[in-house]
Amino acid sequence: MRVLVVGAAGMLGRKLAERLVRDGVVAGAHVSHMSLVDVVEPACPSGAAFPVEAVVADVAEAGVAAGLVSSRPDVVFHLAAVLSGEAEADLEQGYRVNLDGTRFLLDAVRRVGSGYRPRVVFASSIAVFGAPFPEAIGDDYCTTPLTSYGTQKAMCELLLSDYSRRGFLDGVGVRLPTICVRPGQPNRAASGFFSSIIREPLNGEAAVLPVHEEVRHWFASPRVAVDFLLHAAAIESAALGDRRCLTMPGVSATVAGQIAALQSVAGDEAVRRIRREPDETIMRIVAGWPGNFDARRALELGFRADADFEEIVRVYVEDELGGRIGVAGS
Amino acid sequence: MRVLVVGAAGMLGRKLAERLVRDGVVAGAHVSHMSLVDVVEPACPSGAAFPVEAVVADVAEAGVAAGLVSSRPDVVFHLAAVLSGEAEADLEQGYRVNLDGTRFLLDAVRRVGSGYRPRVVFASSIAVFGAPFPEAIGDDYCTTPLTSYGTQKAMCELLLSDYSRRGFLDGVGVRLPTICVRPGQPNRAASGFFSSIIREPLNGEAAVLPVHEEVRHWFASPRVAVDFLLHAAAIESAALGDRRCLTMPGVSATVAGQIAALQSVAGDEAVRRIRREPDETIMRIVAGWPGNFDARRALELGFRADADFEEIVRVYVEDELGGRIGVAGS
Repeated sequence: MRVLVVGAAGMLGRKLAERLVRDGVVAGAHVSHMSLVDVVEPACPSGAAFPVEAVVADVAEAGVAAGLVSSRPDVVFHLAAVLSGEAEADLEQGYRVNLDGTRFLLDAVRRVGSGYRPRVVFASSIAVFGAPFPEAIGDDYCTTPLTSYGTQKAMCELLLSDYSRRGFLDGVGVRLPTICVRPGQPNRAASGFFSSIIREPLNGEAAVLPVHEEVRHWFASPRVAVDFLLHAAAIESAALGDRRCLTMPGVSATVAGQIAALQSVAGDEAVRRIRREPDETIMRIVAGWPGNFDARRALELGFRADADFEEIVRVYVEDELGGRIGVAGS
Repeated sequence: MRVLVVGAAGMLGRKLAERLVRDGVVAGAHVSHMSLVDVVEPACPSGAAFPVEAVVADVAEAGVAAGLVSSRPDVVFHLAAVLSGEAEADLEQGYRVNLDGTRFLLDAVRRVGSGYRPRVVFASSIAVFGAPFPEAIGDDYCTTPLTSYGTQKAMCELLLSDYSRRGFLDGVGVRLPTICVRPGQPNRAASGFFSSIIREPLNGEAAVLPVHEEVRHWFASPRVAVDFLLHAAAIESAALGDRRCLTMPGVSATVAGQIAALQSVAGDEAVRRIRREPDETIMRIVAGWPGNFDARRALELGFRADADFEEIVRVYVEDELGGRIGVAGS
């Protein structure tokens, strides 16, 4: 199997590439070649049993995608996107990368022709949904996003489904929950606090909580998010029918539940590193976000969430801290 | 009020232009100027109390839309589209006209800037929905189209809502029911029979019915469809919130109900002109179409459907036949 990962330098792309190198299989078959593509040079994981190439390219530039698919990869993971903060701040850049880039890639696949019909796994997001919500958002709930990022993802979902229906490709859209705990530095995304209130205390640092503890949200660990992408590459198209985009199962947790999980894993000391600083702007943004889903179709198709938020915390400690909880500042 | 109608040479555009000339008002204010735009020259209705200009232009060509909105029309009706048959037969033309054309138009409005924020009424379609369906499709049901036409309309709905949310324009998307009875010649659209089994008998001609009489569908007369567009131009944005696209109320009727209405208006003679010729292909296509909606939001916002299918038949007789039922061939 030839694999193409577009957006391979991002957090999820990097973890997906590492996992593919470690497993050596995708969709039940051996990986024979992997191309990692991004606008900055993606790291090539070491120790691969197959050739791995890193390509610097921008699929949002017309003509670029044709070169990426000319070798007819069997599985295409499309993760490249500007995130919600940037898509809101820079309208044209958001539509260019998130909509046009995806369209160029899908059109390039379509134009290969000659029976070429790869599995295309598209990283969508629960940002395709916008308030008001029912208590649990079902698989047939409308997509009425309240961000340009969510709008672009929802538009691409439609395109992916149409191109799949018409036989140009075999698409699966996975609506990822908010990934938590994101490794790395704090960022200024409105959702950043969901990770930082766990990550910083585990690293022995202080964190700021800008919302009330009753705020509920929908989470998956980075490890499970990679599982979703790999499972999406493997499922039978017949089971999907024409509805190609699936809300992934997740862990529905309140901020209070997140903090309780942190306490359970790391103790009171860690929890004391969270400082409450209510921020009206962030509270207003977060109020439009979904907190709970009934992701029945994805569960029936074999997608599996983290067990609970405590597991999400433990995944961070295992995968990012080598099992050791930080002591700086304690 | 300056009015721009894009797609003014189509059936609905022509009727909308005639109505605006007759009424002289839009959104509760006098019309001061009207531009009628299409890729073929639109007819200018006579007797207007304000200047009417016909413009031949293709909004799907980059740069064209900027010229159309430079005079800052207060209300923009965007009806231009290639229909479902053509969008399915010619993929690139469908995406070019239906998606790119709409995006060019909305971007041109956005780029005027300086506080310009016109009401943009976008003609969407119930084709944004695709089977399987609940018994009545509610306002929060997912849009999972089963045609490229429906896909393009759903993508444009998302764009319209995002641009409205961001304050670039003040959009309202109206998901039109199947327009029935369409005047003019029979066409080869899969949905053509819904009109032709009424129109041809009323014109004294024979018609073919390719599906079973139990098939249920969602209808509006051309007159009511124009009412929808005008009402959409008039409603307050505050009442809409962020969900800018509305399923229009319609008449849910089976083919048997259509035929009973024809009989009631035009007698047994007319009904005998319908010949049953089941067509497996058309039956399969029609099975994916919606038959019934719960269009609560649009009703609450004051949109009104035809009373029943008999009224739909009478509208055709009044508006297209001058009140006289045809006798040719009888």
